Amino acid sequence: MSERSEQHTQAAPAEAPRGATLSRRRAITLAGVGVAGVAGVAGGAGALARGGDHAAASDTAAGAVPFHGEHQAGITTAAQDRLHFVAFDVITKDRAKLVALLQEWTAAAARMTAGKDAGLIGAVGGMPEAPPDDTGEALGLPPSQLTITVGFGPTLFRDAQGADRFGIADRRPAALADLPHFAGDALKPEISGGDICIQACANDPQVAVHAIRNLARIGMGVVSVRWSQLGFGRTSSTSRDQATPRNLFGFKDGTANLKAEDASLLREQLWAQPGDGPDWMTGGSYLVTRKIRMQIETWDRSSLAEQEQIVGRTKGSGAPLGKTREFDEPDFAAKGDDGQPVIAEAAHVRLAHPNQNGGAHLLRRGYNFVDGSDGLGRLDAGLFFIAYQRDPRKQFVPIQTRLARHDAMNEYLRHVSSGLFACPPGVRDAADWWGRALFS
Amino acid sequence: MSERSEQHTQAAPAEAPRGATLSRRRAITLAGVGVAGVAGVAGGAGALARGGDHAAASDTAAGAVPFHGEHQAGITTAAQDRLHFVAFDVITKDRAKLVALLQEWTAAAARMTAGKDAGLIGAVGGMPEAPPDDTGEALGLPPSQLTITVGFGPTLFRDAQGADRFGIADRRPAALADLPHFAGDALKPEISGGDICIQACANDPQVAVHAIRNLARIGMGVVSVRWSQLGFGRTSSTSRDQATPRNLFGFKDGTANLKAEDASLLREQLWAQPGDGPDWMTGGSYLVTRKIRMQIETWDRSSLAEQEQIVGRTKGSGAPLGKTREFDEPDFAAKGDDGQPVIAEAAHVRLAHPNQNGGAHLLRRGYNFVDGSDGLGRLDAGLFFIAYQRDPRKQFVPIQTRLARHDAMNEYLRHVSSGLFACPPGVRDAADWWGRALFS
Ligand code: HEM
Ligand code: HEM
Repeated sequence: MSERSEQHTQAAPAEAPRGATLSRRRAITLAGVGVAGVAGVAGGAGALARGGDHAAASDTAAGAVPFHGEHQAGITTAAQDRLHFVAFDVITKDRAKLVALLQEWTAAAARMTAGKDAGLIGAVGGMPEAPPDDTGEALGLPPSQLTITVGFGPTLFRDAQGADRFGIADRRPAALADLPHFAGDALKPEISGGDICIQACANDPQVAVHAIRNLARIGMGVVSVRWSQLGFGRTSSTSRDQATPRNLFGFKDGTANLKAEDASLLREQLWAQPGDGPDWMTGGSYLVTRKIRMQIETWDRSSLAEQEQIVGRTKGSGAPLGKTREFDEPDFAAKGDDGQPVIAEAAHVRLAHPNQNGGAHLLRRGYNFVDGSDGLGRLDAGLFFIAYQRDPRKQFVPIQTRLARHDAMNEYLRHVSSGLFACPPGVRDAADWWGRALFS
Repeated sequence: MSERSEQHTQAAPAEAPRGATLSRRRAITLAGVGVAGVAGVAGGAGALARGGDHAAASDTAAGAVPFHGEHQAGITTAAQDRLHFVAFDVITKDRAKLVALLQEWTAAAARMTAGKDAGLIGAVGGMPEAPPDDTGEALGLPPSQLTITVGFGPTLFRDAQGADRFGIADRRPAALADLPHFAGDALKPEISGGDICIQACANDPQVAVHAIRNLARIGMGVVSVRWSQLGFGRTSSTSRDQATPRNLFGFKDGTANLKAEDASLLREQLWAQPGDGPDWMTGGSYLVTRKIRMQIETWDRSSLAEQEQIVGRTKGSGAPLGKTREFDEPDFAAKGDDGQPVIAEAAHVRLAHPNQNGGAHLLRRGYNFVDGSDGLGRLDAGLFFIAYQRDPRKQFVPIQTRLARHDAMNEYLRHVSSGLFACPPGVRDAADWWGRALFS
């Protein structure tokens, strides 16, 4: 046996958290991120003093979010600060191998979201002659509210040639209908689509990256990374406890978002209900991703008034134009002294508002991205848009159709990638696994 | 005048911090990041209660790092958690325009590192008909220990055709000699080099990105972004107060790094001394950047024993092979029962150690990166290596020559970009500016 790390001598590998001795620095690093008050900071410090008691830390940014439940975590979970999103192609034809991978992934995800190594042996607990079953870069880091959310793309049900790859073609939900082409789309196929997606969100990027990397490692030979995206500074709040963050246009983003507290709206707008489609999706949700390049250099040269007209809200407080506080209701009928609407006809929030779209809402959960520069002297930056919903045909598609045609913001935007996934309901317990109802 | 934002009504724009009312959530988000104990967390909360008193917050992760001083901040500053690095090409031929930009940049950097808007008017304080002089996405965010560090590349002194572009060719330091080709180099010119670099480090990526983006905005027409790189999870500790973080091979990185506390070594190894070269560099330091792609998928398939042999340290504790604690001195002479050296001849830490390199040290300050995927089914991930030193000819070059030839780690590495910059001494006061001694 190899010399065990300091971290692993205090507990049996199967139950060991990632480093029984939490790194003090890192635990403090994350203590209190995203919590609502000073009490939260104290809570973080307390959890720390107990040396990584995850339960106690669970309401802090360093703590753990429960993996098992009716719905998958990472949807209504108060949005964490960092994202690593990956789309995989399935490269095996063998259904049994795919099922085995989904089972192995589920176990690894349950472990990692609890702050444990990806595998039972861990990064340093195994035989020296064997590759570790965890890659190690998260050793000593707390759970950091990691959530891991899975989704199945249309191509998993039937490939581009129409073949029923894994005998599940008849289980494809009607709501998982391919998205139409939208005006102005400039999609790159190599960073669009995918058979399976995994969204990892955490308050520490190293923890989110560690999760995706270990899932990719476990999937070797069965899946292959099609594309992946890092994001930061979540651009939408998903809970009324969270202050509204700002996107790279400098505006508050998430003000009028669907929030975790809106129980009846969530039923109506977010979660697939019995009878909506195949049973295996009941309690699940549909995910649309759009990588949207923002022309920030041009935006930065436009006037404050123009920017506010385009969005339909003020840049400082985020209040709807004509109102004074962020959460005031926009008055789309109001006219200025000049007889023009206070919120322009082509303003983003007017066009995207439920009252313009048959009552449709989205739960937005996007992240900012900066992917270096574009070779033309500009930063390659924008919004990795993520939206969850009960039925994209009634929500994302009509809203985006309207936006793509009329939104004044389009001058500064380019949609370069698109993804659509059916995210099954939550994993109920240790015997359940991602896609069980779909594959059984 | 436009309606001022909530944030700007409490103080005159010229002195206003970025949002006089600090966002409570964000202030807490960062309270205590990187501080050494629970007292630090309390300090963060205290600073918060005072509504963004930067001085009081300065020893917390949300606080401000002083911009003025003998040396530039961002070198020995305890490494922050996030990086945005940019290399610019100068696109003007007009020396006066370049000088004016350096002056404007210096003022903006002083403001932003103090948690203020990039310009005097700010994101929302100006006339509605004018573009704001701050882009706004950091409104309400605390300083987050932002440091902004500038460096001048060889091509600023003389272009590829040998022309003395700005009348400073005779001031080029001999130590700023172009790096030689190293064995195995696979450098991409479009993400290498650059006339001017700016390194922004902070504990919040949104703050680091905001800084680079506003400097790029200010530089429009004078400079153009050549390449930029985001990083996370700093891979090297630069202070004995910091726990050693882990790189994407899962190993502790920074154990034997030059640290802020090593005063006499810093004089000898880090800062250009009087007589070293041109006076304008005295108190400055030379920066080498290398973007190193890590073949993490292959690494993950190698055994724990092999990984530890390659590095020369254990993966768990980070102790040198044959020793038990992280900060034990490696014993390069020790042999095992089999007569073989305990730390292999080709081990990374043996080859990189000062005793193999004429006593040469580096101050390493690198960051992990994940840039999506590589189109071949793998994550595009690795280390953005950053090293500061007194003279690259005596430090980086000999060390990297040895590593490039013999390091067992090379099998898993590919250097894809390279940069070399002369970072002048610190800006002394409000009258001083980046490059004043070079251009006067
Ligand atoms: C880079 C692209 C985008 C930017 C910068 C952006 C920005 C914003 C901003 C600043 C707001 C106002 C604050 C808020 O309520 O969150 C907003 C609202 C909203 N956006 Fe976007 N958005 C973008 C793309 C999209 C897309 C593609 C969709 C859906 C197809 C969308 C749907 C919405 C919705 C539904 C609202 C709420 C409208 C309301 O009910 O008032 N956005 N967006
Ligand atoms: C992706 C590439 C690299 C990885 C993963 C890596 C990793 C490591 C690790 C794990 C250590 C041991 C812990 C420590 O003392 O920090 C180390 C030490 C060191 N590395 Fe690297 N390194 C890389 C590239 C480089 C390069 C390019 C250089 C310089 C040319 C370098 C110079 C050093 C030095 C000077 C030490 C300290 C050696 C000692 O004094 O014991 N490394 N590196």
